[in-house]
Amino acid sequence: MRINIPVHLRWGDLDAYQHVNNVEIFRLLEEARVRAFWAPADPEEERPPTAVFEPGGESLSLISGHRIEYLRPLDYQRAPVDVAIWFTEIGAAMARIGYEVYDGTSDAPRVRAASTMVFVQEDGYRPRRISEVERAAWSPYLGDPVPFSRRS
Amino acid sequence: MRINIPVHLRWGDLDAYQHVNNVEIFRLLEEARVRAFWAPADPEEERPPTAVFEPGGESLSLISGHRIEYLRPLDYQRAPVDVAIWFTEIGAAMARIGYEVYDGTSDAPRVRAASTMVFVQEDGYRPRRISEVERAAWSPYLGDPVPFSRRS
Amino acid sequence: MRINIPVHLRWGDLDAYQHVNNVEIFRLLEEARVRAFWAPADPEEERPPTAVFEPGGESLSLISGHRIEYLRPLDYQRAPVDVAIWFTEIGAAMARIGYEVYDGTSDAPRVRAASTMVFVQEDGYRPRRISEVERAAWSPYLGDPVPFSRRS
Amino acid sequence: MRINIPVHLRWGDLDAYQHVNNVEIFRLLEEARVRAFWAPADPEEERPPTAVFEPGGESLSLISGHRIEYLRPLDYQRAPVDVAIWFTEIGAAMARIGYEVYDGTSDAPRVRAASTMVFVQEDGYRPRRISEVERAAWSPYLGDPVPFSRRS
Repeated sequence: MRINIPVHLRWGDLDAYQHVNNVEIFRLLEEARVRAFWAPADPEEERPPTAVFEPGGESLSLISGHRIEYLRPLDYQRAPVDVAIWFTEIGAAMARIGYEVYDGTSDAPRVRAASTMVFVQEDGYRPRRISEVERAAWSPYLGDPVPFSRRS
Repeated sequence: MRINIPVHLRWGDLDAYQHVNNVEIFRLLEEARVRAFWAPADPEEERPPTAVFEPGGESLSLISGHRIEYLRPLDYQRAPVDVAIWFTEIGAAMARIGYEVYDGTSDAPRVRAASTMVFVQEDGYRPRRISEVERAAWSPYLGDPVPFSRRS
Repeated sequence: MRINIPVHLRWGDLDAYQHVNNVEIFRLLEEARVRAFWAPADPEEERPPTAVFEPGGESLSLISGHRIEYLRPLDYQRAPVDVAIWFTEIGAAMARIGYEVYDGTSDAPRVRAASTMVFVQEDGYRPRRISEVERAAWSPYLGDPVPFSRRS
Repeated sequence: MRINIPVHLRWGDLDAYQHVNNVEIFRLLEEARVRAFWAPADPEEERPPTAVFEPGGESLSLISGHRIEYLRPLDYQRAPVDVAIWFTEIGAAMARIGYEVYDGTSDAPRVRAASTMVFVQEDGYRPRRISEVERAAWSPYLGDPVPFSRRS
């Protein structure tokens, strides 16, 4: 099972090659991650059932690594892209997630990626355990590793 | 009459002060401008009736100036902000537009801004006249100057 | 007298039109402002004599408005651009500054701009007075208004 | 042997967590790559001996993948960071490069990363072979794989 997050492109994401810049793809993944996992400040805001992480206060999520493959160029469009996210591992104080980005014009993803998230206490960045609420919300979305096609 | 363009924020628009950065506000206005005035590459894409400018080919739109007032800080939210746009002048080869940005929590805008757009030919950046199609689509949205509250 | 801040471009500042994007120009001005006015966290770091504002702690500087004119397109280059900055007004709790951006290929600026900076207390954003240290460091750089060439 | 490229940070690279944002690190790597490998448009510009790739015209370099590990947070500083780059593989129409980012405060890198670059013809994105000039300029910088410390 996957979490599907629509993320809107911006014309400013294009670079001089006139495609969405490879760096900006990480900005899209970041936005999908925030919308997928973070509880909104305003509880009235719509969010997926996995958005239970409470940032700020005493807890932060950090990124300790990424891996990405760009399969096909992504052009600007008004309709949002679909960022499909799932967990590939849920550990004690960390989680690994996979992503695929679809632009709606084909069944083939434009991008495949994986990130390692680490949960820490704001004070000193000591690891903090994933809570029972988080584990219960996230476990249904645990799935296979990202099928990277080339070594990278 | 105004053109209302929903633009989605990104968590990455925040700066170290934890509000949407003043530079990123211009990125939101740029995106609103593209969605308000540019004809989409794919004619199936939804767009407002003012989106008749055909970028590329022989014609470009350049920005020759901006003016902006930041009235209240803008926080991250999942719901899009509303960028209201109107024309304050439609000249021969240029147009001036006004903007107000609303976050949905109050009737007061967060930001007021104005931009001058110049239409040029790609070859040599010579000015090109606003077409009859453009003038007809845009004239209903001609309105008052932006009510800037302070000298800036 | 002007404060001259070298600011390095990035290829990623270019947009699909292959010039430095008009929004990114504000990022260059922001960086020049930080280097011109903020005291570095590490006192060993080189900085101009005007870099006496101590951000964080109890004091913040906010931007309440900008005005800008783009005179000529700016291309990517490895050498930094020169951002010349001066004060056009030093008030009680605010200051206005002017900028001109030069790329080293001619005596004509690429961009002219002006910003209004407001100094506030972090707690509640109440205005705080410009200190005597700040006023003494900044007054030598008080000069004429920005010679904007068009109404904008 | 490594290519050492100084890259200047911008205050705007910080995110709401007040460190250089993980996405912006890729922007720094992109800038280092452009300065390391691209021949400048103006032959008078200073550049390292590896800057022999002629972008535009008929040839483009695309990124087909990245891998990164964030080892320690990176703070804003006025002095440039040092991006050390080397080749880990030089193939027929592709090359793999490694990077380490140092902030000058310690001998330990803040970031380790690797990218796969593909050289293509602008027309249709067909692969094009690495030229003899490129191979001769780049081969002295061929070295060991990036010592990633964790699986990612």
